[in-house]
Amino acid sequence: MPYVNVKVAGKLSKKQKEEIVEGITKLLEKVANKPPQATYVVIEEIDRDNWGKGGKLLSEKK
Amino acid sequence: MPYVNVKVAGKLSKKQKEEIVEGITKLLEKVANKPPQATYVVIEEIDRDNWGKGGKLLSEKK
Amino acid sequence: MPYVNVKVAGKLSKKQKEEIVEGITKLLEKVANKPPQATYVVIEEIDRDNWGKGGKLLSEKK
Amino acid sequence: MPYVNVKVAGKLSKKQKEEIVEGITKLLEKVANKPPQATYVVIEEIDRDNWGKGGKLLSEKK
Amino acid sequence: MPYVNVKVAGKLSKKQKEEIVEGITKLLEKVANKPPQATYVVIEEIDRDNWGKGGKLLSEKK
Amino acid sequence: MPYVNVKVAGKLSKKQKEEIVEGITKLLEKVANKPPQATYVVIEEIDRDNWGKGGKLLSEKK
Repeated sequence: MPYVNVKVAGKLSKKQKEEIVEGITKLLEKVANKPPQATYVVIEEIDRDNWGKGGKLLSEKK
Repeated sequence: MPYVNVKVAGKLSKKQKEEIVEGITKLLEKVANKPPQATYVVIEEIDRDNWGKGGKLLSEKK
Repeated sequence: MPYVNVKVAGKLSKKQKEEIVEGITKLLEKVANKPPQATYVVIEEIDRDNWGKGGKLLSEKK
Repeated sequence: MPYVNVKVAGKLSKKQKEEIVEGITKLLEKVANKPPQATYVVIEEIDRDNWGKGGKLLSEKK
Repeated sequence: MPYVNVKVAGKLSKKQKEEIVEGITKLLEKVANKPPQATYVVIEEIDRDNWGKGGKLLSEKK
Repeated sequence: MPYVNVKVAGKLSKKQKEEIVEGITKLLEKVANKPPQATYVVIEEIDRDNWGKGGKLLSEKK
């Protein structure tokens, strides 16, 4: 019954999202015996203006 | 002091959001005696390209 | 495919949790046509030392 | 290694986001000795149609 | 700069957690070129009394 | 109406939690004019066995 939330800075292609969803679902099946149908993966693509690291927005950094 | 986060795949109408917010707030008051003014409900509408189930994006499924 | 996260300050009884899960699941079915089997509800009971409101911990308030 | 998620109703300017990220990162360094480079702050600006309080959407209130 | 939150019902062994963290971090590096040092994975083990599916707590089901 | 979730690896003292809650609430008032009474801050202290960085659990690192 896993629920996985993936937040990344910036955008992903649909192909990348497919691979992330497939990869995490298979990993949880292999490692922890979680049935694939029960695994939800929600991907959130966060604007670089809205993600801070080291006290600065990613969009401010070089 | 409840905080409730509702994530759904796809879009909701404003009417549906009103009913969800009202329904959850009343439920928490009735069941757990939480004062309505203290209940926050945040609804997030997730694109079907960003929600995976069973190892596939919802947008890939028939 | 809804995923609902409910955070409350303090503890709930098992009976209250059952009613919250049942109530939210039925609400999402009625309002937004979400199939009950697809709805996950995760309840988190947060210690009053770990929840702040108005700039103070709930455990500091009278 | 802190991860901080800030959800606000409505929009913030880039300047406000910079100040929030800088302020929270410095606070965690000062109070809890967390190295700034390890602190992530993710800001989410939630539409007032998607935030409920007191059983009503913020966009319904006067 | 990914942040990944994994919620599972029930407990995991330390070995399982290691494999989940390693697997997700490598997947995000391979698929989306995210540097491993920037990837945080937080695992939350949720009591079966606190996870609802299909309108019932997992702990109520056979 | 802000909701802030702070996840840290390891434990905080009650004094540290008070300072974090007070500091974030004041920051959001000063920077974004958010009324203190409307700001919720929820602090989650995550076991170092449950937090991964760079593909390893924090508890595995020297």
